[in-house]
Amino acid sequence: MPTVFVYWAPGRSASQKKAVSQRIYEALVEEGGARPEDVLIIFQNIEDGDSARPGLKAASSRITED
Amino acid sequence: MPTVFVYWAPGRSASQKKAVSQRIYEALVEEGGARPEDVLIIFQNIEDGDSARPGLKAASSRITED
Amino acid sequence: MPTVFVYWAPGRSASQKKAVSQRIYEALVEEGGARPEDVLIIFQNIEDGDSARPGLKAASSRITED
Amino acid sequence: MPTVFVYWAPGRSASQKKAVSQRIYEALVEEGGARPEDVLIIFQNIEDGDSARPGLKAASSRITED
Amino acid sequence: MPTVFVYWAPGRSASQKKAVSQRIYEALVEEGGARPEDVLIIFQNIEDGDSARPGLKAASSRITED
Amino acid sequence: MPTVFVYWAPGRSASQKKAVSQRIYEALVEEGGARPEDVLIIFQNIEDGDSARPGLKAASSRITED
Repeated sequence: MPTVFVYWAPGRSASQKKAVSQRIYEALVEEGGARPEDVLIIFQNIEDGDSARPGLKAASSRITED
Repeated sequence: MPTVFVYWAPGRSASQKKAVSQRIYEALVEEGGARPEDVLIIFQNIEDGDSARPGLKAASSRITED
Repeated sequence: MPTVFVYWAPGRSASQKKAVSQRIYEALVEEGGARPEDVLIIFQNIEDGDSARPGLKAASSRITED
Repeated sequence: MPTVFVYWAPGRSASQKKAVSQRIYEALVEEGGARPEDVLIIFQNIEDGDSARPGLKAASSRITED
Repeated sequence: MPTVFVYWAPGRSASQKKAVSQRIYEALVEEGGARPEDVLIIFQNIEDGDSARPGLKAASSRITED
Repeated sequence: MPTVFVYWAPGRSASQKKAVSQRIYEALVEEGGARPEDVLIIFQNIEDGDSARPGLKAASSRITED
Protein backbone atom coordinates (compact mmCIF):
# COMPACT_ATOMS: atom_id res chain seq x y z
CA MET A 1 0.00 0.00 0.00
CA PRO A 2 -0.89 2.61 -0.98
CA THR A 3 -2.91 0.63 -3.50
CA VAL A 4 -5.05 2.76 -5.81
CA PHE A 5 -7.97 1.70 -8.01
CA VAL A 6 -9.15 4.03 -10.75
CA TYR A 7 -12.56 3.16 -12.23
CA TRP A 8 -13.22 5.07 -15.43
CA ALA A 9 -14.46 4.74 -18.99
CA PRO A 10 -12.23 2.87 -21.47
CA GLY A 11 -10.41 4.67 -24.25
CA ARG A 12 -7.49 6.31 -22.49
CA SER A 13 -4.20 5.76 -24.32
CA ALA A 14 -1.16 4.07 -22.82
CA SER A 15 0.58 7.42 -22.50
CA GLN A 16 -2.42 8.94 -20.71
CA LYS A 17 -2.44 6.03 -18.25
CA LYS A 18 1.28 6.47 -17.72
CA ALA A 19 0.93 10.20 -17.07
CA VAL A 20 -2.01 9.73 -14.70
CA SER A 21 -0.33 6.95 -12.72
CA GLN A 22 2.93 8.91 -12.51
CA ARG A 23 1.14 11.91 -11.02
CA ILE A 24 -0.96 9.82 -8.62
CA TYR A 25 2.27 8.20 -7.52
CA GLU A 26 3.95 11.57 -6.95
CA ALA A 27 0.94 12.82 -4.99
CA LEU A 28 1.07 9.80 -2.68
CA VAL A 29 4.81 10.01 -2.10
CA GLU A 30 5.17 13.78 -1.83
CA GLU A 31 1.96 14.63 0.04
CA GLY A 32 1.06 11.32 1.66
CA GLY A 33 4.45 10.11 2.79
CA ALA A 34 4.19 6.82 0.94
CA ARG A 35 7.28 4.74 0.21
CA PRO A 36 7.94 4.85 -3.55
CA GLU A 37 8.18 1.09 -4.03
CA ASP A 38 4.86 0.45 -2.26
CA VAL A 39 2.60 2.44 -4.58
CA LEU A 40 0.49 0.32 -6.93
CA ILE A 41 -2.08 1.80 -9.31
CA ILE A 42 -4.73 -0.34 -11.02
CA PHE A 43 -7.02 0.94 -13.76
CA GLN A 44 -10.41 -0.66 -14.27
CA ASN A 45 -12.09 0.27 -17.54
CA ILE A 46 -15.87 0.31 -17.16
CA GLU A 47 -17.79 0.07 -20.45
CA ASP A 48 -20.45 2.69 -21.01
CA GLY A 49 -23.30 0.20 -20.56
CA ASP A 50 -21.87 -0.91 -17.22
CA SER A 51 -22.26 2.32 -15.33
CA ALA A 52 -25.35 4.34 -14.58
CA ARG A 53 -26.25 7.57 -12.83
CA PRO A 54 -30.05 7.48 -13.02
CA GLY A 55 -30.45 10.62 -10.92
CA LEU A 56 -28.20 12.83 -12.97
CA LYS A 57 -30.69 13.68 -15.70
CA ALA A 58 -33.30 14.79 -13.21
CA ALA A 59 -30.77 17.01 -11.45
CA SER A 60 -29.47 18.49 -14.72
CA SER A 61 -32.91 19.38 -16.04
CA ARG A 62 -33.77 20.91 -12.67
CA ILE A 63 -30.70 23.11 -12.98
CA THR A 64 -31.48 23.98 -16.60
CA GLU A 65 -35.02 24.94 -15.68
CA ASP A 66 -33.85 27.42 -13.06
CA MET B 1 -21.54 8.59 -3.05
CA PRO B 2 -23.48 6.43 -2.71
CA THR B 3 -21.30 4.49 -5.11
CA VAL B 4 -22.48 0.94 -5.79
CA PHE B 5 -20.58 -1.96 -7.32
CA VAL B 6 -22.47 -4.99 -8.58
CA TYR B 7 -20.33 -8.07 -9.27
CA TRP B 8 -22.23 -10.69 -11.23
CA ALA B 9 -22.03 -13.07 -14.17
CA PRO B 10 -22.06 -11.55 -17.68
CA GLY B 11 -25.05 -11.93 -19.97
CA ARG B 12 -27.53 -9.41 -18.62
CA SER B 13 -29.07 -7.26 -21.36
CA ALA B 14 -28.87 -3.47 -21.50
CA SER B 15 -32.50 -3.22 -20.43
CA GLN B 16 -31.92 -5.54 -17.46
CA LYS B 17 -28.99 -3.40 -16.35
CA LYS B 18 -31.09 -0.29 -16.75
CA ALA B 19 -33.95 -1.75 -14.71
CA VAL B 20 -31.63 -2.99 -11.97
CA SER B 21 -29.74 0.31 -11.71
CA GLN B 22 -32.96 2.30 -11.69
CA ARG B 23 -34.32 0.29 -8.76
CA ILE B 24 -31.05 0.38 -6.84
CA TYR B 25 -31.06 4.13 -7.34
CA GLU B 26 -34.63 4.43 -6.05
CA ALA B 27 -33.80 2.30 -3.02
CA LEU B 28 -30.87 4.53 -2.11
CA VAL B 29 -32.79 7.77 -2.56
CA GLU B 30 -36.11 6.71 -1.01
CA GLU B 31 -34.84 4.52 1.84
CA GLY B 32 -31.29 5.75 2.29
CA GLY B 33 -31.73 9.47 1.91
CA ALA B 34 -29.18 9.78 -0.88
CA ARG B 35 -29.13 12.80 -3.14
CA PRO B 36 -30.27 11.74 -6.62
CA GLU B 37 -27.33 13.21 -8.50
CA ASP B 38 -24.79 11.47 -6.25
CA VAL B 39 -25.78 7.87 -6.94
CA LEU B 40 -23.41 5.96 -9.23
CA ILE B 41 -23.85 2.29 -10.07
CA ILE B 42 -21.05 0.23 -11.65
CA PHE B 43 -21.51 -3.30 -12.98
CA GLN B 44 -18.57 -5.67 -13.09
CA ASN B 45 -19.15 -8.78 -15.17
CA ILE B 46 -17.22 -11.75 -13.77
CA GLU B 47 -16.72 -14.60 -16.25
CA ASP B 48 -17.70 -18.05 -15.05
CA GLY B 49 -14.10 -19.23 -14.79
CA ASP B 50 -13.22 -16.23 -12.63
CA SER B 51 -15.38 -17.01 -9.64
CA ALA B 52 -15.40 -20.03 -7.37
CA ARG B 53 -17.32 -21.28 -4.39
CA PRO B 54 -15.40 -24.43 -3.54
CA GLY B 55 -17.43 -25.12 -0.41
CA LEU B 56 -20.83 -24.99 -2.04
CA LYS B 57 -20.82 -28.48 -3.49
CA ALA B 58 -19.98 -30.04 -0.16
CA ALA B 59 -22.78 -28.11 1.51
CA SER B 60 -25.28 -28.94 -1.24
CA SER B 61 -24.58 -32.66 -1.16
CA ARG B 62 -24.84 -32.63 2.63
CA ILE B 63 -28.29 -31.05 2.30
CA THR B 64 -29.31 -33.48 -0.46
CA GLU B 65 -28.23 -36.44 1.66
CA ASP B 66 -30.42 -35.35 4.55
CA MET C 1 -22.80 -13.47 -6.79
CA PRO C 2 -24.38 -11.05 -7.32
CA THR C 3 -22.22 -9.40 -4.70
CA VAL C 4 -22.99 -5.73 -4.10
CA PHE C 5 -20.87 -3.09 -2.38
CA VAL C 6 -22.47 0.17 -1.30
CA TYR C 7 -20.02 2.94 -0.39
CA TRP C 8 -21.73 5.80 1.39
CA ALA C 9 -21.52 8.16 4.34
CA PRO C 10 -22.06 6.68 7.83
CA GLY C 11 -25.17 7.41 9.83
CA ARG C 12 -27.81 5.26 8.25
CA SER C 13 -29.88 3.34 10.80
CA ALA C 14 -30.19 -0.43 10.93
CA SER C 15 -33.70 -0.21 9.55
CA GLN C 16 -32.57 1.97 6.66
CA LYS C 17 -29.84 -0.53 5.82
CA LYS C 18 -32.37 -3.33 5.99
CA ALA C 19 -34.80 -1.53 3.69
CA VAL C 20 -32.09 -0.62 1.19
CA SER C 21 -30.63 -4.11 1.08
CA GLN C 22 -34.07 -5.68 0.75
CA ARG C 23 -34.87 -3.54 -2.26
CA ILE C 24 -31.47 -4.06 -3.89
CA TYR C 25 -32.02 -7.78 -3.40
CA GLU C 26 -35.45 -7.62 -5.02
CA ALA C 27 -34.08 -5.62 -7.96
CA LEU C 28 -31.40 -8.23 -8.59
CA VAL C 29 -33.76 -11.19 -8.35
CA GLU C 30 -36.74 -9.71 -10.18
CA GLU C 31 -34.95 -7.72 -12.90
CA GLY C 32 -31.56 -9.39 -13.04
CA GLY C 33 -32.51 -13.05 -12.71
CA ALA C 34 -30.29 -13.65 -9.70
CA ARG C 35 -30.82 -16.65 -7.45
CA PRO C 36 -32.15 -15.42 -4.09
CA GLU C 37 -29.59 -17.25 -1.97
CA ASP C 38 -26.66 -15.86 -3.96
CA VAL C 39 -27.26 -12.16 -3.32
CA LEU C 40 -24.88 -10.57 -0.81
CA ILE C 41 -24.91 -6.87 0.02
CA ILE C 42 -22.04 -5.18 1.85
CA PHE C 43 -22.15 -1.61 3.17
CA GLN C 44 -18.97 0.37 3.55
CA ASN C 45 -19.33 3.53 5.58
CA ILE C 46 -16.92 6.21 4.41
CA GLU C 47 -16.28 8.98 6.92
CA ASP C 48 -16.69 12.52 5.67
CA GLY C 49 -12.98 13.22 5.74
CA ASP C 50 -12.29 10.12 3.67
CA SER C 51 -14.02 11.18 0.50
CA ALA C 52 -13.45 14.13 -1.74
CA ARG C 53 -14.91 15.61 -4.89
CA PRO C 54 -12.50 18.49 -5.53
CA GLY C 55 -14.12 19.42 -8.85
CA LEU C 56 -17.65 19.74 -7.55
CA LYS C 57 -17.34 23.21 -6.06
CA ALA C 58 -15.99 24.62 -9.32
CA ALA C 59 -18.85 23.04 -11.26
CA SER C 60 -21.46 24.22 -8.76
CA SER C 61 -20.27 27.81 -8.76
CA ARG C 62 -20.20 27.76 -12.56
CA ILE C 63 -23.84 26.65 -12.52
CA THR C 64 -24.76 29.25 -9.91
CA GLU C 65 -23.14 31.98 -11.92
CA ASP C 66 -25.20 31.17 -14.99
CA MET D 1 -18.64 -13.74 3.37
CA PRO D 2 -15.76 -14.34 3.40
CA THR D 3 -15.68 -12.80 -0.07
CA VAL D 4 -12.23 -12.68 -1.65
CA PHE D 5 -11.03 -10.62 -4.60
CA VAL D 6 -7.77 -11.53 -6.30
CA TYR D 7 -6.39 -8.86 -8.64
CA TRP D 8 -3.62 -10.22 -10.83
CA ALA D 9 -2.27 -10.36 -14.37
CA PRO D 10 -4.23 -12.42 -16.91
CA GLY D 11 -2.88 -15.70 -18.27
CA ARG D 12 -3.49 -18.15 -15.45
CA SER D 13 -5.09 -21.39 -16.66
CA ALA D 14 -8.41 -22.75 -15.43
CA SER D 15 -6.61 -25.39 -13.40
CA GLN D 16 -4.35 -22.80 -11.79
CA LYS D 17 -7.40 -20.75 -10.81
CA LYS D 18 -9.05 -23.86 -9.43
CA ALA D 19 -6.00 -24.77 -7.38
CA VAL D 20 -5.57 -21.24 -6.04
CA SER D 21 -9.23 -20.85 -5.11
CA GLN D 22 -9.30 -24.27 -3.47
CA ARG D 23 -6.36 -23.40 -1.24
CA ILE D 24 -7.68 -19.92 -0.40
CA TYR D 25 -10.94 -21.61 0.54
CA GLU D 26 -9.16 -24.13 2.77
CA ALA D 27 -7.18 -21.35 4.45
CA LEU D 28 -10.35 -19.43 5.27
CA VAL D 29 -12.21 -22.46 6.60
CA GLU D 30 -9.35 -24.13 8.49
CA GLU D 31 -7.57 -21.04 9.87
CA GLY D 32 -10.30 -18.41 9.75
CA GLY D 33 -13.31 -20.39 10.92
CA ALA D 34 -15.37 -19.57 7.84
CA ARG D 35 -18.41 -21.64 6.93
CA PRO D 36 -17.61 -23.62 3.76
CA GLU D 37 -20.70 -22.53 1.82
CA ASP D 38 -20.05 -18.84 2.48
CA VAL D 39 -16.65 -18.58 0.80
CA LEU D 40 -16.67 -16.82 -2.58
CA ILE D 41 -13.52 -16.11 -4.57
CA ILE D 42 -13.49 -13.68 -7.50
CA PHE D 43 -10.54 -13.24 -9.85
CA GLN D 44 -10.03 -9.94 -11.64
CA ASN D 45 -7.53 -10.09 -14.47
CA ILE D 46 -5.72 -6.78 -14.86
CA GLU D 47 -4.05 -6.28 -18.25
CA ASP D 48 -0.41 -5.25 -18.19
CA GLY D 49 -1.16 -1.72 -19.38
CA ASP D 50 -3.70 -1.26 -16.60
CA SER D 51 -1.38 -1.48 -13.63
CA ALA D 52 1.61 0.62 -12.74
CA ARG D 53 4.22 0.79 -10.02
CA PRO D 54 6.07 3.95 -10.95
CA GLY D 55 8.28 3.85 -7.87
CA LEU D 56 9.56 0.33 -8.34
CA LYS D 57 12.18 1.09 -10.93
CA ALA D 58 13.74 3.79 -8.76
CA ALA D 59 13.85 1.42 -5.80
CA SER D 60 15.28 -1.43 -7.88
CA SER D 61 18.06 0.62 -9.37
CA ARG D 62 18.90 1.96 -5.91
CA ILE D 63 19.25 -1.62 -4.70
CA THR D 64 21.28 -2.63 -7.76
CA GLU D 65 23.62 0.27 -7.23
CA ASP D 66 24.38 -0.76 -3.67
CA MET E 1 -0.14 -7.77 -7.76
CA PRO E 2 -1.47 -10.23 -6.90
CA THR E 3 -3.42 -7.99 -4.55
CA VAL E 4 -6.01 -9.80 -2.46
CA PHE E 5 -8.97 -8.37 -0.54
CA VAL E 6 -10.70 -10.50 2.07
CA TYR E 7 -14.09 -9.18 3.22
CA TRP E 8 -15.28 -10.96 6.32
CA ALA E 9 -16.80 -10.47 9.76
CA PRO E 10 -14.60 -8.88 12.45
CA GLY E 11 -13.30 -10.91 15.35
CA ARG E 12 -10.45 -12.89 13.89
CA SER E 13 -7.30 -12.77 16.01
CA ALA E 14 -3.95 -11.51 14.82
CA SER E 15 -2.64 -15.06 14.63
CA GLN E 16 -5.63 -16.18 12.56
CA LYS E 17 -5.04 -13.33 10.14
CA LYS E 18 -1.37 -14.23 9.97
CA ALA E 19 -2.15 -17.89 9.26
CA VAL E 20 -4.76 -17.06 6.63
CA SER E 21 -2.55 -14.53 4.83
CA GLN E 22 0.43 -16.90 4.91
CA ARG E 23 -1.58 -19.66 3.26
CA ILE E 24 -3.16 -17.33 0.68
CA TYR E 25 0.35 -16.14 -0.11
CA GLU E 26 1.61 -19.70 -0.54
CA ALA E 27 -1.34 -20.57 -2.78
CA LEU E 28 -0.60 -17.61 -5.05
CA VAL E 29 3.13 -18.30 -5.27
CA GLU E 30 3.00 -22.09 -5.54
CA GLU E 31 -0.09 -22.52 -7.70
CA GLY E 32 -0.39 -19.14 -9.39
CA GLY E 33 3.22 -18.39 -10.19
CA ALA E 34 3.20 -15.07 -8.34
CA ARG E 35 6.45 -13.41 -7.31
CA PRO E 36 6.74 -13.58 -3.52
CA GLU E 37 7.42 -9.87 -3.00
CA ASP E 38 4.39 -8.82 -5.06
CA VAL E 39 1.70 -10.49 -2.96
CA LEU E 40 -0.34 -8.11 -0.80
CA ILE E 41 -3.29 -9.23 1.32
CA ILE E 42 -5.78 -6.75 2.77
CA PHE E 43 -8.47 -7.68 5.28
CA GLN E 44 -11.66 -5.66 5.47
CA ASN E 45 -13.75 -6.34 8.55
CA ILE E 46 -17.45 -5.91 7.83
CA GLU E 47 -19.62 -5.40 10.91
CA ASP E 48 -22.64 -7.66 11.21
CA GLY E 49 -25.08 -4.82 10.50
CA ASP E 50 -23.22 -3.91 7.34
CA SER E 51 -23.85 -7.07 5.39
CA ALA E 52 -27.09 -8.69 4.34
CA ARG E 53 -28.21 -11.78 2.49
CA PRO E 54 -31.96 -11.18 2.31
CA GLY E 55 -32.59 -14.27 0.17
CA LEU E 56 -30.85 -16.74 2.40
CA LYS E 57 -33.65 -17.22 4.89
CA ALA E 58 -36.14 -17.99 2.15
CA ALA E 59 -33.78 -20.54 0.64
CA SER E 60 -32.99 -22.13 4.01
CA SER E 61 -36.61 -22.57 5.00
CA ARG E 62 -37.35 -24.05 1.59
CA ILE E 63 -34.59 -26.59 2.19
CA THR E 64 -35.79 -27.28 5.74
CA GLU E 65 -39.31 -27.84 4.53
CA ASP E 66 -38.23 -30.48 2.00
CA MET F 1 -16.43 8.25 -12.73
CA PRO F 2 -13.52 8.48 -12.53
CA THR F 3 -13.96 6.96 -9.09
CA VAL F 4 -10.73 6.40 -7.19
CA PHE F 5 -10.09 4.23 -4.14
CA VAL F 6 -6.92 4.71 -2.14
CA TYR F 7 -6.12 1.90 0.31
CA TRP F 8 -3.41 2.90 2.74
CA ALA F 9 -2.40 2.88 6.39
CA PRO F 10 -4.29 5.21 8.76
CA GLY F 11 -2.68 8.28 10.23
CA ARG F 12 -2.71 10.78 7.41
CA SER F 13 -3.97 14.21 8.47
CA ALA F 14 -6.95 15.98 6.95
CA SER F 15 -4.63 18.36 5.12
CA GLN F 16 -2.60 15.48 3.70
CA LYS F 17 -5.78 13.83 2.44
CA LYS F 18 -6.87 17.13 0.93
CA ALA F 19 -3.55 17.63 -0.83
CA VAL F 20 -3.46 14.05 -2.14
CA SER F 21 -7.04 14.14 -3.42
CA GLN F 22 -6.50 17.54 -5.04
CA ARG F 23 -3.50 16.27 -6.95
CA ILE F 24 -5.19 13.00 -7.96
CA TYR F 25 -8.09 15.08 -9.18
CA GLU F 26 -5.80 17.33 -11.22
CA ALA F 27 -4.05 14.32 -12.73
CA LEU F 28 -7.36 12.82 -13.85
CA VAL F 29 -8.67 16.05 -15.33
CA GLU F 30 -5.46 17.32 -16.92
CA GLU F 31 -3.97 14.05 -18.16
CA GLY F 32 -7.02 11.78 -18.33
CA GLY F 33 -9.61 14.12 -19.76
CA ALA F 34 -12.05 13.58 -16.88
CA ARG F 35 -14.86 16.03 -16.25
CA PRO F 36 -14.13 17.92 -13.01
CA GLU F 37 -17.49 17.25 -11.39
CA ASP F 38 -17.25 13.49 -11.99
CA VAL F 39 -14.10 12.80 -10.00
CA LEU F 40 -14.66 11.10 -6.65
CA ILE F 41 -11.84 9.99 -4.38
CA ILE F 42 -12.39 7.59 -1.48
CA PHE F 43 -9.76 6.79 1.15
CA GLN F 44 -9.85 3.46 2.94
CA ASN F 45 -7.63 3.30 6.00
CA ILE F 46 -6.30 -0.23 6.52
CA GLU F 47 -5.04 -0.91 10.03
CA ASP F 48 -1.57 -2.39 10.33
CA GLY F 49 -2.87 -5.79 11.41
CA ASP F 50 -5.19 -5.93 8.43
CA SER F 51 -2.58 -6.03 5.71
CA ALA F 52 0.18 -8.51 5.07
CA ARG F 53 2.99 -9.00 2.60
CA PRO F 54 4.32 -12.38 3.69
CA GLY F 55 6.81 -12.59 0.82
CA LEU F 56 8.47 -9.26 1.40
CA LYS F 57 10.74 -10.35 4.21
CA ALA F 58 12.15 -13.22 2.18
CA ALA F 59 12.82 -10.91 -0.77
CA SER F 60 14.36 -8.22 1.44
CA SER F 61 16.76 -10.59 3.17
CA ARG F 62 17.74 -12.04 -0.21
CA ILE F 63 18.59 -8.53 -1.36
CA THR F 64 20.43 -7.75 1.86
CA GLU F 65 22.49 -10.91 1.52
CA ASP F 66 23.68 -9.98 -1.96
